[in-house]
Amino acid sequence: MNAHKSPLITNESDRYYQRLRSLQTPTGRARTGLYLIEGIRLVSRALEERAPIESLFVDPSVLCNSYGRKLKDRLARDGVPCHRLSPPLYRDLTRAAEPQGIGAVLRQQWTPLAALPRHPAALYLAVESIDSAGNLGTMLRTAEAAGVTAVIMIGQGADPHDPTAVRASMGALLAHTLARTTPSEFLQWTRTAGIACIGSSPTGLLDYRGFPCPSPAALLIGSEKQGLSPQVLESCHFLVRIPMLGRGDSINAAVAAGLLLYAMSPAVQPQSLA
Amino acid sequence: MNAHKSPLITNESDRYYQRLRSLQTPTGRARTGLYLIEGIRLVSRALEERAPIESLFVDPSVLCNSYGRKLKDRLARDGVPCHRLSPPLYRDLTRAAEPQGIGAVLRQQWTPLAALPRHPAALYLAVESIDSAGNLGTMLRTAEAAGVTAVIMIGQGADPHDPTAVRASMGALLAHTLARTTPSEFLQWTRTAGIACIGSSPTGLLDYRGFPCPSPAALLIGSEKQGLSPQVLESCHFLVRIPMLGRGDSINAAVAAGLLLYAMSPAVQPQSLA
Repeated sequence: MNAHKSPLITNESDRYYQRLRSLQTPTGRARTGLYLIEGIRLVSRALEERAPIESLFVDPSVLCNSYGRKLKDRLARDGVPCHRLSPPLYRDLTRAAEPQGIGAVLRQQWTPLAALPRHPAALYLAVESIDSAGNLGTMLRTAEAAGVTAVIMIGQGADPHDPTAVRASMGALLAHTLARTTPSEFLQWTRTAGIACIGSSPTGLLDYRGFPCPSPAALLIGSEKQGLSPQVLESCHFLVRIPMLGRGDSINAAVAAGLLLYAMSPAVQPQSLA
Repeated sequence: MNAHKSPLITNESDRYYQRLRSLQTPTGRARTGLYLIEGIRLVSRALEERAPIESLFVDPSVLCNSYGRKLKDRLARDGVPCHRLSPPLYRDLTRAAEPQGIGAVLRQQWTPLAALPRHPAALYLAVESIDSAGNLGTMLRTAEAAGVTAVIMIGQGADPHDPTAVRASMGALLAHTLARTTPSEFLQWTRTAGIACIGSSPTGLLDYRGFPCPSPAALLIGSEKQGLSPQVLESCHFLVRIPMLGRGDSINAAVAAGLLLYAMSPAVQPQSLA
């Protein structure tokens, strides 16, 4: 079984290892269209979701878990190249407190706006220029639980394939249909497709609960500090507000997105679930 | 005005500086009952909330903002001792990406359970053994916005005075009435005071929306991995569940707390706000 075992990579200047390190950076990910995942749970999820796995990397000294080993063998049988890294090299690749000794390089999957799934009860999460990769990953996780149709990244902002976003998404990134676009293209697409734009804003006139949410719709979340851009804000059909008491003037962006997604997503309304 | 300017601390072994460093650790905070805050916004909020400020520390090379200087002068006039730190010493005290050159040492304020505010529409947030200080701070922030009556820390878990929790709370920590207790004392207190216990659990039978939430009530949130302890779980009057679609089996703990707080808090229901 181990006849084809690759040599243990111990040198930082190894070409494959250098490629892994480059995927920790935005430019490395943008140039290659690849990204990294780490941990048994995420690699297993990548297999379940049929994500395009380019290669595996393992730290054999850490990968003692039998499920992890079986996962590696299964992917090796499918023809996925597997590289073995020394413990210090492996550790430098992950932000996990307890690395699990198995990770993978995946190809990013972006869907053109025009090819996104469309149906009368669709709800899209559109994120404009969010700053924190952790918040973005947490939003992806909640969006999966709330049954969102697809996630659209508008403009420049945190990268959903950033290692922090991938970790915070707990694998939801692998399940989502993702698109990226500019504000103008996004607004054009919603007009053409008859999708209502619901913006979240502290100046919104409508309480986020109990307003007549149209369908299909896109929920628009802006950056933590600036909110939505004027161009997007002006094009929204409804601006909703989360009421807040106390001296704080805002709540965490991922918590706000969670409240709005659960209030608006047709898929998790009590009558849909009953 | 500057006649009483303190000497610039440039030495790591300075006694006051050593004390500041110790407050970054759980043992240092537990031993002294003090904690650190950093940034103009938090120090200003401490003043507004009349929090007990023991001392100020500033990096004069960074504190150029006129509002920050006025804040420092105002607190100095109130008799709060102010210590000046060299830039490298100051920077080592904060996790902020852009330190603002002003911070403070505050006394922790804990209220005994029996002295917590009580009223018929009270909602308490009770957090049992949460692991992540960031999640705890985010919950404190949402709890303030949702008009929670008091926050109760049950058992061992993340420290609300941990620098990461303080930052994530965005100042809400300073506004809350805080208590800490054991599971047994907490359950005894709720029985005596006639407070319903609502637990959050993936095995809960009730959808978190639209169940007849009694009042006064305590919302119980357990640890990210383990959930609530069996002792607390068994004593809950209601166990509620957040419905989730997709392959993920959970959402972020702070997002879950946000959904539950906004669904249950009488203070932010549409009829209360109208």
